[in-house]
Parts: sequence; structure tokens; C-alpha cells
Amino acid sequence: MIPYCSICWDVDKVKLLDQRRLPAEELYLEITDYHEVIEAIRTLAIRGAPAIGVAAAMGAALGALDLDTQNPGEFLSRFEKICAEIAQARPTAVNLFWALDRMQRLAQAQAGEPVAAIKARLVAEAQTMLKEDDTTNRRMAQAGQVLIHDGQRVLTHCNTGALATGAYGTALGVLRAAWEGGKRFSVWVDETRPLLQGARLTTWELGKLGIPYTLIPDGAAATLMHQGKVDLVILGADRIAANGDTANKIGTYSVAVLAHHHGIPFYVTAPLSTFDFSIPNGDHIPVEERDAEEVTHLWGQAVAPAGAPALNLAFDVTPNNLIAGIVTEKGIMEPPFSSSLKPYRPTQE
Amino acid sequence: MIPYCSICWDVDKVKLLDQRRLPAEELYLEITDYHEVIEAIRTLAIRGAPAIGVAAAMGAALGALDLDTQNPGEFLSRFEKICAEIAQARPTAVNLFWALDRMQRLAQAQAGEPVAAIKARLVAEAQTMLKEDDTTNRRMAQAGQVLIHDGQRVLTHCNTGALATGAYGTALGVLRAAWEGGKRFSVWVDETRPLLQGARLTTWELGKLGIPYTLIPDGAAATLMHQGKVDLVILGADRIAANGDTANKIGTYSVAVLAHHHGIPFYVTAPLSTFDFSIPNGDHIPVEERDAEEVTHLWGQAVAPAGAPALNLAFDVTPNNLIAGIVTEKGIMEPPFSSSLKPYRPTQE
Repeated sequence: MIPYCSICWDVDKVKLLDQRRLPAEELYLEITDYHEVIEAIRTLAIRGAPAIGVAAAMGAALGALDLDTQNPGEFLSRFEKICAEIAQARPTAVNLFWALDRMQRLAQAQAGEPVAAIKARLVAEAQTMLKEDDTTNRRMAQAGQVLIHDGQRVLTHCNTGALATGAYGTALGVLRAAWEGGKRFSVWVDETRPLLQGARLTTWELGKLGIPYTLIPDGAAATLMHQGKVDLVILGADRIAANGDTANKIGTYSVAVLAHHHGIPFYVTAPLSTFDFSIPNGDHIPVEERDAEEVTHLWGQAVAPAGAPALNLAFDVTPNNLIAGIVTEKGIMEPPFSSSLKPYRPTQE
Repeated sequence: MIPYCSICWDVDKVKLLDQRRLPAEELYLEITDYHEVIEAIRTLAIRGAPAIGVAAAMGAALGALDLDTQNPGEFLSRFEKICAEIAQARPTAVNLFWALDRMQRLAQAQAGEPVAAIKARLVAEAQTMLKEDDTTNRRMAQAGQVLIHDGQRVLTHCNTGALATGAYGTALGVLRAAWEGGKRFSVWVDETRPLLQGARLTTWELGKLGIPYTLIPDGAAATLMHQGKVDLVILGADRIAANGDTANKIGTYSVAVLAHHHGIPFYVTAPLSTFDFSIPNGDHIPVEERDAEEVTHLWGQAVAPAGAPALNLAFDVTPNNLIAGIVTEKGIMEPPFSSSLKPYRPTQE
């Protein structure tokens, strides 16, 4: 019914929808070399924390397949290096590290097996992670759809649909589940500068889902809130600290402050794999600074004078006190998040 | 020293820097037909409330020159129609109506004179208005520069420099006067979607003035404020109601709320010609809604799926309670603005 997927495994290669070309063109990359997966993550051919996690796992599986040793010890040590290399692709989304960690732990647990068997397990695991992401997203969507009511005008930022995940979507998954459950509402889509994930991707996905939306410049959200035309904000996350502080696409913190000022509930949607319980709060989240050219140019064309200095922070951090709730596959976590999240903290090993 | 001007009168024509082509190209349009002035205002070849006022006056003068009657009564009636036509160019900036009103009152006051004399007076008046705008801006700049201190990081939105005025600038004029007075500071430039007046024009002007700046996406202002990297916000206005409520470029209200949340002073700079004392508050300011294509396309290239619905409000209204002060040619007005502005309300005629 949704005739596209962000990423999938196809026999011995990764197929990946090149999101840099959307909405103009629907082009699938076919990748057999893990270096190309790194490049795809770095250049945002694939983006969105859960999708990055799946891509990293599949990239690791590709890397494993390419290793030409039959010695398990050597295999594991070279596999570890590949994972470390993939981990450098982007710094903020924790799903990247979570996925690679899981792949490495699996490999190590198979240390006694022949290399071919370890490889097969890794390939299977990457595919399992994609399936799990789908299941997790659908659970989140079911948990979150109670927030959506008929007639609401919902605002979202960046892209959190099937494109940003293995399948279905996080915040957009919540809207999709509500829509499929018969609720009727409309969506304000922040265009999300500089890379316009809202304008290019969220509109494209909402269009395919048949959910009515209106695209707006990021600067217009405030006045719509003031006019009483925004009932709820829901969006995704790239990393959430143990206290609920949330890193997400640049502009998210702005929306959070504006929602707070106007008394509008602000919800985050993210799987538990996006939580980083190792850090107490958002101050510890590394925020990626990307090339200034993403701000000064659009598709190669300058929008500013040559050499204009620009700052391109890819993410910002929203403090927990601005967040009404975090939708996860285990239900909607409410403040104080340190308490509500406690049962889901990984136990000390 | 600033080798450009937004608009000037040249013997029998209007020369106008085509701001749609900046920063790529510095092209001056030469206009003899007032319809082209209307088109230039409508398509933003010239924009910024004070510049629109001057352009409207010069357009009216061009229209007057073209009238082929020697009958003062017929001349005045046809001139009135021309002014009414120019008044349709854009709805929000009150300087447009203020300038046309002034031209019409002048024409009517000359009703007993030969048509040639009235025409000459109108042409002279349009040029006077440009000179007055320069003088007014320099007075504003002097009044406002006390707000700027060494080491400050100042945030501005849209463009308020010499390009947005007859000369010198409003909010950017304040920064220019401070800089020329030896103060050293830096500027965060909101790119100002959808039409990128910050990215295209403010950067260009600050570059020419030698004032250091950094361009940011509009959504990044909040996180810079949170990090303590914004000391002051200063920007312009398109229409200010009697109570100080201020219409300005879309995204301004967003910046105002964010500044308020972070305890950062938020200043507006505008000449008295931008005040509309006929309306008690901002609810009465008509906000122009422009073509959705300005959001969905950039220089003819789509950034959203074909047919994507978009809302393109050109302005928003910032309530007076978020404004620390309004810099005018009569000094800095402080809240409550109804009181501080009282001496400058036009007397009932």
C-alpha cells in the first residue's frame, strides 16, 4: 500500500531510496560496498535516526561479507574496525551506535563458529533489525494515536515517516495509525531548513498516505500558534538523554519554546533504541555541525554572496521541561522522564 | 562609500536596483512607466517599507508626467486614479499609502496651478521624500546606536538596510551607525524564508559595510539564544499600530517569542511613516498572503512535490508586550507605547 521503502536487503546487496533526489525522482541505490553505506548516511541519501540504525547494521553486514579471511579471530578484529569506521558517519543519532554495538556483540557471541556462519548470522541480524523497526514503529504508532483527535491541526518538523525509519515511521507513524483508524485531521508541515526534509519528504509521504497537509516556512509556525490554528506538535528524535532532553533536527527547540509559550502540547516520538541512558542530560549530546554550503547553497545554486559565513548546526536539544510526553513502543512516557523511563534503562551488566 | 542605492530619480526616470537578482547580479532597472513601478513593488524588485514608500511616490510622479491633459481638474482626477492603482501593489506596508496620500494632498494643494507646475512639484516631492528618508534613517540610526555595545552578538531578521529604504537603513542603519562610531560587534543573520532576504540581501549589505556576520537558518535562532550567544534582537517593521503592535516579515513574531523566553531585549526600528495611528492594535493590520509557489519553489525549481499545498503569509504581527522599544527618528519609544507615541500622533484635521 505504501509503494516505497527507505532501505531493504536484497540477496547480497542493500537497496536504498536516495532521499537527496526526492521529491523530484524516486531512485534506488544498489549498494554492495559498506563504504557506500557510510557515504549514503553522511550525505543524507538515508537519514532519520531509526533508518540510520538499520543502514548501519546492513552496512556492517556488507562489510562482513567482503572480509576474505576464514580465521574467526581475524574476522572479528577486522569486523570491529569496519564497525568503528561506520560509526564515524554521523555523530548525533544514537541508533547508529546502538545498531553497530548490537552487530558487534552478536559477532563476538559467535566467535567459536566458522566465519561463513558468523557472516550469515550478521546478514540475518541486519534484516531482523529492519523487521523489528517496523514492529516497534507500529507499536509506537498505536500507543501514540490516542493523542490525535478528529479536527485537530497537528504541526510537525523534519521527516519522521517510513523514509526516516525502516518502515512505517515514528511521529508520522502516529499520524498514519490515527488516519488509518479513521480519525480526520490535518498537518502543518515545517519545511525544515536548511535541507528541507519537511518540504521534500514529509509532504511526499503525507501525499502518498492521503493525509491533508499544508507546507509552511519554519518562521510561520509561531503566528499559526498565536492564531489558535495548532492543536498539537509531534515530531521525532535523534537522541534522548536519560532525563528526556531530546536532540532532534535544528528548529525543534524553537518549535518547543513556541508551543510552550502558546500552551500547545509538544510530543516526541522515538523507539527505545533512540534513548541514550549513558548520558544524564542533553548537555552531553554531541551536535553535528555540517557544511555551511548546505545553508548558503540550494542544489548547487548560491542563495548568499560568495564566501558568506554560515553556521549549520544539524540538530538542537530540547530540554525535558518543554516536552509533554515521549511516545515509545512501550507506551507514552510522561514527565518526570527519569522516573517513567526507569523500567527501560538497560540493566548494568 | 556604499556604492549602491535601492532607488533614485534620474532626470525623467526611476532607477531601481533589482533586488530579485541579488546577490548574484547588481542590475538597475530604468523605469519610465508607473505600471512597471507597481510590478517592481509587487514582485519585490524593491521591498522594505520605507523603500516601498519612496517607490510609490516616484511611481506616482512618473504617472503624473505621463498624463497628457492641460486641464488641472482632469489632471487631478486622473492622478488620483493612478495613486489608487499604485496603492493596490501590496497591502501591508503602510508607507505605501502614506507616500501616496502625501503626493495626492500636494497635488490637491496645487489645484489652481498649471498642470506643468503641478507635475514639477510632484517630481520634486518624490525626490524630497527620498532625501527625507535618508535624513530620517540617519536620525533613527543615531538614536538607536546607544543600544549596541562592543562584543555584542546581535540577531536580525529579514533586510532593513539601505536596500529596504531610500538610503542608510532602519535596523541595519542602527548597526551601521554603531559600527561607524567604532563599536565592534557581530551579527546573526536569519536567512528569512521563504524569500531569503536575510541570506541574499542583509549578508550582501553587511559584507559591503565590513560588519562581521554569520548566516543561520531561521530555525537555528532559538538554540543560539539558549546557548547565550544572542545579546540583542533588532529588526524593522512594515506597519505599527497605535499601541505598538508591529507587523513585520514572517518569522518576526517567532523571534520575538523566543527572545522573550530567553530574556533577550527585542527592538523594532521604524520611521514614524511606518506607524498607522488610525488602527488601535495589530488585529487591524491586513497581512498579505503571497503565492504558495514562493514556498514550494526556489528560483523556479521545486522544493516540494508538484501541487503541494503551502501557506505563504508575508508578514506576522508581534504584540507590543514582546517589544522592549521602538527606535524612531524621534528617539527610542518605550512601553507603554500608547503613551510614548502620543506626541507623534497626527492631530485631527
